[in-house]
Amino acid sequence: MKIALLQCNLMVGDVHGNVAHLEQAVLDAVEQGATLCVATELAVTGYPPRDLLLRPDFLGHAWHALEELAGRIADLPPLLVGVAEANHGAVGSPAFNSAALLCEGKVSAVFRKQLLPTYDVFDERRYFEPALADGPPNVFTQDGTTIGVTICEDIWNDKDFWSRHRYYDTDPVTRLHEAGAELIINLSSSPFTLGKQAVRESMLSSVAAKHGLPVLYCNQVGGNDDLVFAGKSMAFDAEGTLFARAKGFEEDILVVDVAAREARIEPDYNMEEMQAWNALVTGTRDYVRKCGFSRGLLGLSGGIDSALTCAIAVEALGRENVLGVLLPSPYSSKGSVDDAKALAANLGVKTVTIPIKGPMRAFDKVLDEVFFDMEPDVTEENIQSRIRGNLLMAMSNKYGAMLLTTGNKSELSVGYCTIYGDMAGGLAVIADVPKTMVYRICNWLNNWRGEIIPKAVMDKPPSAELRPDQTDQDTLPAYDLLDALLEMLVERNMSVEAIVAAGYDAQTTRRVARMVRTAEFKRKQAPPGIKITDRAFGTGWRMPIAGRFAF
Amino acid sequence: MKIALLQCNLMVGDVHGNVAHLEQAVLDAVEQGATLCVATELAVTGYPPRDLLLRPDFLGHAWHALEELAGRIADLPPLLVGVAEANHGAVGSPAFNSAALLCEGKVSAVFRKQLLPTYDVFDERRYFEPALADGPPNVFTQDGTTIGVTICEDIWNDKDFWSRHRYYDTDPVTRLHEAGAELIINLSSSPFTLGKQAVRESMLSSVAAKHGLPVLYCNQVGGNDDLVFAGKSMAFDAEGTLFARAKGFEEDILVVDVAAREARIEPDYNMEEMQAWNALVTGTRDYVRKCGFSRGLLGLSGGIDSALTCAIAVEALGRENVLGVLLPSPYSSKGSVDDAKALAANLGVKTVTIPIKGPMRAFDKVLDEVFFDMEPDVTEENIQSRIRGNLLMAMSNKYGAMLLTTGNKSELSVGYCTIYGDMAGGLAVIADVPKTMVYRICNWLNNWRGEIIPKAVMDKPPSAELRPDQTDQDTLPAYDLLDALLEMLVERNMSVEAIVAAGYDAQTTRRVARMVRTAEFKRKQAPPGIKITDRAFGTGWRMPIAGRFAF
Repeated sequence: MKIALLQCNLMVGDVHGNVAHLEQAVLDAVEQGATLCVATELAVTGYPPRDLLLRPDFLGHAWHALEELAGRIADLPPLLVGVAEANHGAVGSPAFNSAALLCEGKVSAVFRKQLLPTYDVFDERRYFEPALADGPPNVFTQDGTTIGVTICEDIWNDKDFWSRHRYYDTDPVTRLHEAGAELIINLSSSPFTLGKQAVRESMLSSVAAKHGLPVLYCNQVGGNDDLVFAGKSMAFDAEGTLFARAKGFEEDILVVDVAAREARIEPDYNMEEMQAWNALVTGTRDYVRKCGFSRGLLGLSGGIDSALTCAIAVEALGRENVLGVLLPSPYSSKGSVDDAKALAANLGVKTVTIPIKGPMRAFDKVLDEVFFDMEPDVTEENIQSRIRGNLLMAMSNKYGAMLLTTGNKSELSVGYCTIYGDMAGGLAVIADVPKTMVYRICNWLNNWRGEIIPKAVMDKPPSAELRPDQTDQDTLPAYDLLDALLEMLVERNMSVEAIVAAGYDAQTTRRVARMVRTAEFKRKQAPPGIKITDRAFGTGWRMPIAGRFAF
Repeated sequence: MKIALLQCNLMVGDVHGNVAHLEQAVLDAVEQGATLCVATELAVTGYPPRDLLLRPDFLGHAWHALEELAGRIADLPPLLVGVAEANHGAVGSPAFNSAALLCEGKVSAVFRKQLLPTYDVFDERRYFEPALADGPPNVFTQDGTTIGVTICEDIWNDKDFWSRHRYYDTDPVTRLHEAGAELIINLSSSPFTLGKQAVRESMLSSVAAKHGLPVLYCNQVGGNDDLVFAGKSMAFDAEGTLFARAKGFEEDILVVDVAAREARIEPDYNMEEMQAWNALVTGTRDYVRKCGFSRGLLGLSGGIDSALTCAIAVEALGRENVLGVLLPSPYSSKGSVDDAKALAANLGVKTVTIPIKGPMRAFDKVLDEVFFDMEPDVTEENIQSRIRGNLLMAMSNKYGAMLLTTGNKSELSVGYCTIYGDMAGGLAVIADVPKTMVYRICNWLNNWRGEIIPKAVMDKPPSAELRPDQTDQDTLPAYDLLDALLEMLVERNMSVEAIVAAGYDAQTTRRVARMVRTAEFKRKQAPPGIKITDRAFGTGWRMPIAGRFAF
């Protein structure tokens, strides 16, 4: 039996496009000798379909497309494919997260997901009813082999592997083993985060070895809104040894001969900077494309954040599809304009320069009568930033190019950014990248490709340049310290007390915690960012705004 | 036994403030002769605490505050109060949604919520583990009466009452009845939506009559972020007759003598316009206050949306705390300025006028070189709107007043609004009010209070005034039709096919559906709006942005 793992980049909501895409993948797999094909979790709907799942018409269209696909591949080997299945019962959530077996023109079996993640970015209990823990086991027989079917989270709850708190008290894999499964297949749409691939491989290896069963894992690839999927579908033998791995961040069809342990192993690069780069490029490319755009633009300040964002945009969209916009003010240093131009030249992107002095003066003039003798404060800095936001959006409107924002996670955490100003845009490319990691990625990029990011950009002190001689460190602790604090506060949910007990300065920690808290209103209106850490702002971060609390 | 329902307006996250507030409420209740006090769901943490529940320190502080409260009221009658309880088990969600019985200085019993809503704005499975359906029943005995405890959703699943699809297959009330309960208490934080109070009363009456048990319902009051809680705590006798109702949209302590059926019944006004008005005023007052502001400002265009928003702001914050900003452009009609001033005069709010012609020219000038021979389009309209957004935010920054946005639900649905322009602000006061309802509320307001909204504002055709002689209906169907379509598409999840089958024009329906779909990116960056309908944009609307689908 040769099993093809169809690692496709699918489009959320586009059920007809997706089944056409899957049909083509099956045809390609058959050419490579596949006798069974496996696609990813919710492949027909694209993942994550979110509240589309609440629409009965959408569930109907998805099922109809599934049946159409069954018909189109009637003469080909069976396909196991993820689909949302309407819950026609009188009770429960509106759907099931299912894997349908398409065989000889029909939906010959349906297997339902049992463990429904409802944490971080996942809302599966909102949409799905779980398979009954004591219902019929999710197995089918193919070429004499009993195959156990799991869907994503179903395979992530082995009590012997996880020392951390688990969400569920059952382990579907154990049950499949008991039901006679000789091979475990997992259909996944498991989002990328830094370092997760190593955990995934280790976990799948452990599950295979524990049960003495081969495990085949098929994962979605590509970006959808804030989530990126790395692909890297895999196969493990009954001893837990990895013997197949598909490409990362690319579509792939991986044909696995389980009995012969034959397949290819694509290399996996676990260097953090490279992982982050690939995820950000994939996320940007797919978000822009799947929103119907082919071009992007961004403001180039001469700083490192916009430099990295521009490099990512060029890799994702092609240099000819990226426009850099320089928006110097009287507070911009000569170096900033030169550095931005040098960066653009290194990347081969066109630039436009629009000095903002005129609009700044016009705002000063109309506000002068209202503000008369009030001292300049952050108001005037925000006005500048919002003039830039307005100009960039005007360019975006006029040219049909998506505006990419350039703020990093450290800024967004503490609110060192202007809502409707530098936060304006369709996609916040590096919103989940801490400032210190921005530097690391840029260093890695320069080592890999030669000096893309000009040395001057790497070396100068970070500054918003919204008033004379301003630097970020007038307002913020050093970024090394800030990022360490933010990782504890934001990603690890640690209390100020615990952080101080770990040796950090109490006053600084409290100040940063307070800044994180009071910036919530800005984050609520931020564009989607590409998630690469365990805890990104966005769908997986749901803090109240009004109220009274510190972290 | 005299039971006091403590209908308090609590602060999310402020556990120490909340227990102090509850202590005072208990003292007041005791003065009125109460022998048992009942507070609302998650009263100690404030509701909804959202991702604060993922922080172990927050759960620790909440429990500590609860124990402190138990100590402080040790000499007073018992208090049944909602609190988040950490799940110290090895498996499951991080907390339980519990009611703690505080008695003689200690936490003498804890009752856990069983039915956890995970739909619309609710994410309870994200945070909470349900009580075991076969665990010990949630009952305790007070003055010889066996009392059954339910928490909000627990009482909303009677299969005899609901003909609609239910989410759960168990009914906690039936189980309490079987366990010998002689009285059912419900601790709620049940958000306001239009028309829900009538359903709530009818449902509670039905449950009481079905089981032949009195039902006491204690509901939170006040606004927290996008949600408003109406209060209106109630008591029903064993025949299902309502014999007590607390105030709406105000704090109240309702003391109920169940045996004697003695208590007061505050009037309930079920007129939709008045309900909406009260909810919007409460939501605005509490959001502004709980964000730490006391003042608000808004742009006054002379149109009906900003007129209603201003009236709400004045009612919520006081006329002295509201500033109206007129931002006329060369496209503003003379009438618009006069109408805005007339409105401000009617409401007694101060205004400032900042003509935007200067900044518009400055933008034209710097963009002229970039755009040169390209035709004016929506870009130029957006620039105007964003100049206004920038000026309003500058006023907000300088004066420490929260900017209130004035867009209605119809606009937000179809994207007839400018991101970072008229969408800019801290709170979108009427973002869940369809345009036709805006008119209805204004009419009602004028009938009630005399001409608050000038007749000219009510009568003129709606216009964004972003180009000469523009009206909304250049772009949109008539609002009666549009709102009917939006109600079907957005609130009722109906398909285009079903709407067309109901007799609506196919082309118009498809066009509106497409507009709703493509405006998602704007809504993702919208400020919080006050939810008053069954389906508001915001926390209960989670659509993908990138992808390909229509509704």
